[in-house]
Amino acid sequence: MNATPTPEITKPSVPAPDIIRCAAMDLVVTDLAASRAFYVDVLGLHVTEEDDEAIYLRSFEEFIHHNLVLRKGPVAAVAAFAYRVRTPEDVDRAEAYYRELGCRTERRAGGFQKGFGDSVRVEDPLGFPYEFFYATEHAERLHQRYDLISAGELVRLDHFNQVTPDVPRGRKYLEDLGFRVTEDIQDDQGVTYAAWMQRKGTVHDTALTGGNGPRMHHIAFSTHEKHNIIQICDKLGALRMSDHIERGPGRHGVSNAFYLYITDPDGHRIEIYTQDYWTGDPDNPVITWDVHDNQRRDWWGNPVVPSWYTEASPVLDLDGNVVEVVERTDSSEMEVTIGADGFSYTRVGDDDGTYRGEASKGFKIGTQL
Amino acid sequence: MNATPTPEITKPSVPAPDIIRCAAMDLVVTDLAASRAFYVDVLGLHVTEEDDEAIYLRSFEEFIHHNLVLRKGPVAAVAAFAYRVRTPEDVDRAEAYYRELGCRTERRAGGFQKGFGDSVRVEDPLGFPYEFFYATEHAERLHQRYDLISAGELVRLDHFNQVTPDVPRGRKYLEDLGFRVTEDIQDDQGVTYAAWMQRKGTVHDTALTGGNGPRMHHIAFSTHEKHNIIQICDKLGALRMSDHIERGPGRHGVSNAFYLYITDPDGHRIEIYTQDYWTGDPDNPVITWDVHDNQRRDWWGNPVVPSWYTEASPVLDLDGNVVEVVERTDSSEMEVTIGADGFSYTRVGDDDGTYRGEASKGFKIGTQL
Amino acid sequence: MNATPTPEITKPSVPAPDIIRCAAMDLVVTDLAASRAFYVDVLGLHVTEEDDEAIYLRSFEEFIHHNLVLRKGPVAAVAAFAYRVRTPEDVDRAEAYYRELGCRTERRAGGFQKGFGDSVRVEDPLGFPYEFFYATEHAERLHQRYDLISAGELVRLDHFNQVTPDVPRGRKYLEDLGFRVTEDIQDDQGVTYAAWMQRKGTVHDTALTGGNGPRMHHIAFSTHEKHNIIQICDKLGALRMSDHIERGPGRHGVSNAFYLYITDPDGHRIEIYTQDYWTGDPDNPVITWDVHDNQRRDWWGNPVVPSWYTEASPVLDLDGNVVEVVERTDSSEMEVTIGADGFSYTRVGDDDGTYRGEASKGFKIGTQL
Amino acid sequence: MNATPTPEITKPSVPAPDIIRCAAMDLVVTDLAASRAFYVDVLGLHVTEEDDEAIYLRSFEEFIHHNLVLRKGPVAAVAAFAYRVRTPEDVDRAEAYYRELGCRTERRAGGFQKGFGDSVRVEDPLGFPYEFFYATEHAERLHQRYDLISAGELVRLDHFNQVTPDVPRGRKYLEDLGFRVTEDIQDDQGVTYAAWMQRKGTVHDTALTGGNGPRMHHIAFSTHEKHNIIQICDKLGALRMSDHIERGPGRHGVSNAFYLYITDPDGHRIEIYTQDYWTGDPDNPVITWDVHDNQRRDWWGNPVVPSWYTEASPVLDLDGNVVEVVERTDSSEMEVTIGADGFSYTRVGDDDGTYRGEASKGFKIGTQL
Ligand SMILES: [Ca+2]
Ligand SMILES: [Fe+2]
Ligand SMILES: [Fe+2]
Ligand SMILES: [Fe+2]
Ligand SMILES: [Fe+2]
Repeated sequence: MNATPTPEITKPSVPAPDIIRCAAMDLVVTDLAASRAFYVDVLGLHVTEEDDEAIYLRSFEEFIHHNLVLRKGPVAAVAAFAYRVRTPEDVDRAEAYYRELGCRTERRAGGFQKGFGDSVRVEDPLGFPYEFFYATEHAERLHQRYDLISAGELVRLDHFNQVTPDVPRGRKYLEDLGFRVTEDIQDDQGVTYAAWMQRKGTVHDTALTGGNGPRMHHIAFSTHEKHNIIQICDKLGALRMSDHIERGPGRHGVSNAFYLYITDPDGHRIEIYTQDYWTGDPDNPVITWDVHDNQRRDWWGNPVVPSWYTEASPVLDLDGNVVEVVERTDSSEMEVTIGADGFSYTRVGDDDGTYRGEASKGFKIGTQL
Repeated sequence: MNATPTPEITKPSVPAPDIIRCAAMDLVVTDLAASRAFYVDVLGLHVTEEDDEAIYLRSFEEFIHHNLVLRKGPVAAVAAFAYRVRTPEDVDRAEAYYRELGCRTERRAGGFQKGFGDSVRVEDPLGFPYEFFYATEHAERLHQRYDLISAGELVRLDHFNQVTPDVPRGRKYLEDLGFRVTEDIQDDQGVTYAAWMQRKGTVHDTALTGGNGPRMHHIAFSTHEKHNIIQICDKLGALRMSDHIERGPGRHGVSNAFYLYITDPDGHRIEIYTQDYWTGDPDNPVITWDVHDNQRRDWWGNPVVPSWYTEASPVLDLDGNVVEVVERTDSSEMEVTIGADGFSYTRVGDDDGTYRGEASKGFKIGTQL
Repeated sequence: MNATPTPEITKPSVPAPDIIRCAAMDLVVTDLAASRAFYVDVLGLHVTEEDDEAIYLRSFEEFIHHNLVLRKGPVAAVAAFAYRVRTPEDVDRAEAYYRELGCRTERRAGGFQKGFGDSVRVEDPLGFPYEFFYATEHAERLHQRYDLISAGELVRLDHFNQVTPDVPRGRKYLEDLGFRVTEDIQDDQGVTYAAWMQRKGTVHDTALTGGNGPRMHHIAFSTHEKHNIIQICDKLGALRMSDHIERGPGRHGVSNAFYLYITDPDGHRIEIYTQDYWTGDPDNPVITWDVHDNQRRDWWGNPVVPSWYTEASPVLDLDGNVVEVVERTDSSEMEVTIGADGFSYTRVGDDDGTYRGEASKGFKIGTQL
Repeated sequence: MNATPTPEITKPSVPAPDIIRCAAMDLVVTDLAASRAFYVDVLGLHVTEEDDEAIYLRSFEEFIHHNLVLRKGPVAAVAAFAYRVRTPEDVDRAEAYYRELGCRTERRAGGFQKGFGDSVRVEDPLGFPYEFFYATEHAERLHQRYDLISAGELVRLDHFNQVTPDVPRGRKYLEDLGFRVTEDIQDDQGVTYAAWMQRKGTVHDTALTGGNGPRMHHIAFSTHEKHNIIQICDKLGALRMSDHIERGPGRHGVSNAFYLYITDPDGHRIEIYTQDYWTGDPDNPVITWDVHDNQRRDWWGNPVVPSWYTEASPVLDLDGNVVEVVERTDSSEMEVTIGADGFSYTRVGDDDGTYRGEASKGFKIGTQL
């Protein structure tokens, strides 16, 4: 791990590709059978295609070939965050854009992922493997296959979440690429701890979480209703897999969505998410949260568990090697909010709602024990 | 606090009263306006009647006069756990029953609570103020007043929960009184940590939680659906009162209900609860949980916060004085499951799911911080 | 069909059996494979046992052997409405009770249904095959098997509904047997059109619907939440079986439950039902609805389809022969509320809400076409 | 009413404005107090501003000034369907676009609706009053005001629905304007009965329903979950206003949304709608439904009531006069599916699911009575 100062990323002169939405993740897993059991048998994602090397999964309402590839490999990591662009020409635009950024790019007419066509993969300025594609085979959209729906059905891919040390730097780069910020977390010193940014009119297609990176924090699927998320917890309990529940369920402050974080057999984090709000207007109001607001990450003040701040998945470069992680030098959200040095409040200026140790309130985390 | 050995409670020779259900709690609060704001404005219970001294509240589907009295007093405490009996004669039976038990009893033809008639109050063998009544004024049952229903509506009083040091002793006494045990928590040494017992065909009308007692652990109201409980959390967040959320929401192992624990302005604990199961058959299978099973109190393995084990409300004797608390001498559930000495497991015999400190799993409680 | 005057049924001098709840229906179906596909594959009931002649099904939260037998036979009909009684001796009591009523009875130590023990079957005074049993094998209660739960899961058997020509006569007989009326439908001439009566503290264990009888109107299973019922409709749509949806979903006026009526491959009617209210208090207020109140059967004023009034399943005598049906002589609910002669109102005395033809309102049923 | 042949609408040479979404309706009502009671007290829309002439309402998650104006006037009608455009310049583009179309336009720098700025209104080629604006005051977005949320909360404006005689003509015009078709209803003769078209990535921002027009068929608001829609029905029942429920609730075939249609005091139709699917990809598959498919408009095969086909609200021209209605000459969906001449099927080629009279099936509509 190193902590090189990172200069601002200059906006290219060529136009950015027109990104429609986060569309698929290419995820390396170490035990394909174990991952299949988790994503297919437990979570109920639908198999479009599979072989000995990879399984192509889609959510209930998806019509493109897949939203998630489980790919067998030696190291659990992310091989690509794939975005769909509006036209075939936007793949060209993406390639030109990242070339001007000085990034390594690779173009494959036949695509990197089965079911997708002409695509470009890049090692982006933050160190993430980003992929852009337009062409895709269409799969059966299952949205009215209520004979197949499960009680905890995942209906859409909602967003990615990426860990990066310098959030403002990453945010500027993504805004240049066409993303719009919807919410962020700051302190009164001007430190940004996280930012959410969107293309498709929801709260985000991806978010940047401040921390040692590049790493993948989580990938999120959405459900129709809140009870679907509760069912996923209930099912993990029934299978005696409740230790796969990391955090939640709860209501986010940021995004207002009802959420749950679980971990797959490799420790990759998946969020289940529902009911954020429309953000597609150009003047959509940006919401900035105070890092000390105890309701920012959980509207109910329930504690963010430490692992949620510290753990994340490595990402791969275009050769398939793990990208070296750069340490965050700005203050850490966990440190300023949890433990002996941190503090949070429920009500600004009200001592009853202010305490050391996030959400401790005497009872929420048993640090006194 | 003292720890006198407590002999078994002998079953009276006279018949027990036929108890229908837990029906009302007479609760002393120190600031009537603050409590009204909490129970009426925040939780949405319905006022049947009120004056400067007391507020009579009922749930959405109730037709008896009230389920909860908020009574102004100097010490936040429970004045009575009131059960409804099947006939007027069952009040006589209750009086005779407790007299034979050697308990202090008081009979009031006009009732102890407005809206209720002829009643008997007793200081029961465990030190709790129990009340038995049949006669009640009927209030408008609001069950089809969907013009009045709130998004987090409390529809029924579901149960009481009492803290007592010797659970088997209390359980035997309540079984003699006609309650039937549905579930309990034990260890392999034969220690009982808690027991749930019912009259009305749900998992419980009251439960005994092992601890220093007599104290009131909580009173529980039920909602129609799970999202109603989520709304209560969301509303507390919106009002910047999230520090009133103590534990949950979650799915209980014991009872299988979806739950939430919140605290009122005096620290009285209220549970919101929905969707347990039918227990009214005479051979309803009793479920015994291992105290080390990490899913027993939360099916998702989320931690029980220490305050939930340690905090509870005092109860009053028939003179209105706080009853002295007797210390539990059996092992403490908190100690055997949380912290350096405690352990829990997700899967019996599987080290991956076994850890020191309940639900710690490296991430669930940040004891490492 | 004949219309013999039917004298009042005299209450026996011997005590009635203590009935706990409606527990199981013995249902004859003509095509076992087709019925299995419907009840198991579509509705998701759980098979406790099956062979070439019969399939034993239970709901998600049940612990007795089954709630429904699908039994292969030549005529689609009900072989028995089975109630569980509190003790083995209550089976004796049931036998003596019906003998004094002059009914044919048959006692079988080994039970009439697999998984049930010593039982008595009777041809009751209304012509229905009633069964009473205490002994039962216990099956795995699936209430926490969230790995098995479906999106439209049926969690309990809730009630039966029986068609009989003379509702007051049947009601008196069932009240003598220990049932308590919770709601009924009458007109201002004193005609009773239907009555609901309970043992287990819900709105009913069985109901009497006025019409040519004895026939079985429906059997009802409950779900946890309303969305589960919507899912059953959605699934029937996905399977292109929407013509199995007869009426609903809707909110009942009577009982306040959210409901749906569907028909099985033989035309047996099943109700799916959730969220009625507690009725177990001895002075539970009886609600009487005016037959002309357009919200009595559907709180939203949606029309009751004619088939719902006219169609029902035959019942069998103890020899397995179809019981002859007696014609209703009192006025017909359908006739007084639907069509040229009927009328309904939404608001008493308000002409805007009063119209010929139930729920027609110009648009609800297209009688003008 | 006249039935002039209507030539195809030629696409202008100037660029179309970039429409973000349907944003607001300007609705004339005849009794402002009665309408306020309906939209505010019953439906719970939030008042941004009001005076003696108009009430400005917004949904729970909205941040622009309003989604609905109730404007006092002599004739219940629609004064404008307002779309928000991406930039101030898009208002110019809209003006130029409609001028080239030969439409009457009116530009107001101060806006036509309070809270909106520079806008253009046009009499569009189909006769509808369309409005385009960018500038708007921001109101408090209530999305986390769970202290204000009702059990049946309307969270977003979802879409408009317009009646026009020649659907393909209108569709072509709206496609030129930048809308994309997501679903339609046709027959095997090539007649189009309705088409749905979107800008914001849901199934529609507006739809064209074939019929005598221009008229406004309905305006639709969305809820978070399905139970919210059920609550609206329940509340209308509690208020004895169930005759305001016209059709549903149900599951649409087209759009897959859960829906309800109600009517306001003037007979304006409002749809409540939730959970359609993402359509924002450029190659989003268009779904064409057969007009004879009985599940196309209700996935459960429940009948479309005749009034739903025949009734609609007039629209106003820029002088505030009611626009004359042109008769549809293509076949009528109601006639080909309901009544003696119509037929529908549940399963293609299966006589059991085919019948005269939509959804009659012997029981669904009692035409036999
Ligand atoms: Ca729900
Ligand atoms: Fe996320
Ligand atoms: Fe409890
Ligand atoms: Fe029923
Ligand atoms: Fe619509």
